[in-house]
Amino acid sequence: MLNFELYNPTNYVFGKGQIEKLATLTPKNAKILLAYGGGSIFKNGVYDQVKKALTDFEIVEFGGIEPNPRFETLMKAVEVIREQNIDFILAVGGGSVIDGVKFVSAAVHFDGNPIDILQKRLLIKENAMPFGTVLTLPATGSEMNSGSVVTIDATQEKLAFGGSAMFPKFSICDPTVVQSLPKRQIENGIVDAFTHVMEQYLTYPHDALLQDRFSEGILQTLIEIGPKVVENPSDYKLASNFMWCATMALNGLIQKGVPNDWATHMIGHELTALYEIDHARTLAIIAPNLYRVMFETKKGKLAQYGKRIFNLTGTDDEIANEAINKTVAFFETMGMPTKLSDCTKDFEKTADFIATRFEERGWFAMGEKQNITPEKVRVIVEMSY
Amino acid sequence: MLNFELYNPTNYVFGKGQIEKLATLTPKNAKILLAYGGGSIFKNGVYDQVKKALTDFEIVEFGGIEPNPRFETLMKAVEVIREQNIDFILAVGGGSVIDGVKFVSAAVHFDGNPIDILQKRLLIKENAMPFGTVLTLPATGSEMNSGSVVTIDATQEKLAFGGSAMFPKFSICDPTVVQSLPKRQIENGIVDAFTHVMEQYLTYPHDALLQDRFSEGILQTLIEIGPKVVENPSDYKLASNFMWCATMALNGLIQKGVPNDWATHMIGHELTALYEIDHARTLAIIAPNLYRVMFETKKGKLAQYGKRIFNLTGTDDEIANEAINKTVAFFETMGMPTKLSDCTKDFEKTADFIATRFEERGWFAMGEKQNITPEKVRVIVEMSY
Repeated sequence: MLNFELYNPTNYVFGKGQIEKLATLTPKNAKILLAYGGGSIFKNGVYDQVKKALTDFEIVEFGGIEPNPRFETLMKAVEVIREQNIDFILAVGGGSVIDGVKFVSAAVHFDGNPIDILQKRLLIKENAMPFGTVLTLPATGSEMNSGSVVTIDATQEKLAFGGSAMFPKFSICDPTVVQSLPKRQIENGIVDAFTHVMEQYLTYPHDALLQDRFSEGILQTLIEIGPKVVENPSDYKLASNFMWCATMALNGLIQKGVPNDWATHMIGHELTALYEIDHARTLAIIAPNLYRVMFETKKGKLAQYGKRIFNLTGTDDEIANEAINKTVAFFETMGMPTKLSDCTKDFEKTADFIATRFEERGWFAMGEKQNITPEKVRVIVEMSY
Repeated sequence: MLNFELYNPTNYVFGKGQIEKLATLTPKNAKILLAYGGGSIFKNGVYDQVKKALTDFEIVEFGGIEPNPRFETLMKAVEVIREQNIDFILAVGGGSVIDGVKFVSAAVHFDGNPIDILQKRLLIKENAMPFGTVLTLPATGSEMNSGSVVTIDATQEKLAFGGSAMFPKFSICDPTVVQSLPKRQIENGIVDAFTHVMEQYLTYPHDALLQDRFSEGILQTLIEIGPKVVENPSDYKLASNFMWCATMALNGLIQKGVPNDWATHMIGHELTALYEIDHARTLAIIAPNLYRVMFETKKGKLAQYGKRIFNLTGTDDEIANEAINKTVAFFETMGMPTKLSDCTKDFEKTADFIATRFEERGWFAMGEKQNITPEKVRVIVEMSY
């Protein structure tokens, strides 16, 4: 097992009716920036619950944080905070709103041009404005981790950053919100969480036995509940397991002590930046082809995954190959496209563009073995056309 | 899934050579009480590593915290802290030293007689002295939770308390320490961790699918590595999985959103208080008989456990019964006694004594269904003779 540090100070508050705890969770006398996205919180009742819980607080609202939150939009929130002497931010929304608020939190007191936080991938360890979240869309795990991904419109770049100051002070996760979600968002959420686990699990066999069991537990649960929760989003059993799995998939626990990949995300982010394809869909398109191209590196773990998750039998090579097919089948069950051409007509130069961009950024060695080169990225993306 | 709050701010630092991080983890300029037990840290090299890492700090030592730490001993540490203007405590040891330090941390600034913390089971949410730990014996999970168990010598009571101020600020867990442990302590540690999981898992079937998978993952890993780590304690793969399993078994995660039992511990604590039987051994003696007496309540989960952990087949009743036998067999493999009479000759009035004591304490309804009465406790203990 690799050495690791596990530190996660987020107070995670889970269950029905928990939004009313906002008044005790929010720092006394705080002036709050209430940040949200496109307005779904007005339809699903969450906005009303939040306002009711925070009757005694002074609130300034900032709506319109878009999916794949934009640096340009978020800098407007930074201005509002500075002008209005805000001292606490409440993110009410999904991963995009929460990721956006993390950037705002880091940018408010940042000494320099906040675009550096993204382009230089700075580690934010202090001087962040405290924030909490009310989660409305299970998927990214951002409600209980210290990472964030923000898009710069001007350069069409989708970039990750993070740091120990980027943990939410608290996150309220009420699974009843799942019933208000469009089918497509539930499908995306399941696949997003599933792929998060795969990035941390599907590497090579190693000594961290318990982490594998935990990852496999999340994968098994997502496979068990995924198709059902799409059909029955008001079933609390399904919704609550979905929400909890999505958090556990990326709150840091399962990545401790093990190799990580994350190349599927690196490539997927480019597809979203270029074509606005939903994040989860980019992962479903890229991941299986990445496993195929990196088969020799990953076949040991693919075989373990095939045996433990899909009960496959045969030689390890057979099981590993079939496990990839089973993964594609699961993604299809979850309504995912499997090819880039399903999502855009304008795909022909994508592989060249992304491979060249990675070269320019110096991303010559990605993946758990540092053997995913820009040339391999080109092949993976071409296979995904 | 039941509503829950997950909050665990301990900075958990795991791996080889991590003790040297003490200097950066300990608050600057702190005057430290270095608390330890019977002196094993002088033999296994941990004391030297700690002193070397803390060269720049002022340290007062307090040794002699016993297994099942005594209130009477701990109050002496409280006096030392008050006299010497200590402002940080470092627990270097196993669960007993860490539990003891938690009590000391709570007692130092306590307004009133600290014995009330135990006898009135007070919730400690503030005014505790900050403390960190260096773990030398994987077993109790105390290094990453907010609970503690302390024995009052005068009344022969072993009592639990806790609260959000009782989380260690940090815990350093270096698995290489396992190689220095006596075989009996490794066996105890495995069984202690295993039984911790069972208290949170072996209740009745419920909707929290992922928590079950996590619990089963810990049980599977302990069964896989338990006998091997006893034979090869210097094997880092085995030692590291052992240490990590013991922490995850009782750091709060797997108990969230699910019913809990803990009656085996309540009864086991009495056996330790009465006869000084090792904690883990009391659990191994009591747990199987508790499952037998509470069979109707637990058989659904026993069947799930039998299928998933031991791959048993048959009717659910058959599987449930056989799963208890498999548990006993595992405990025996781990060197546990299976009867009270293996540990003491003086057992004949034990069932009466414990049942009466529980009645006097008003413990009329224990277990996940609140249906373990003092009368059932009497039967369980008698079966364990």
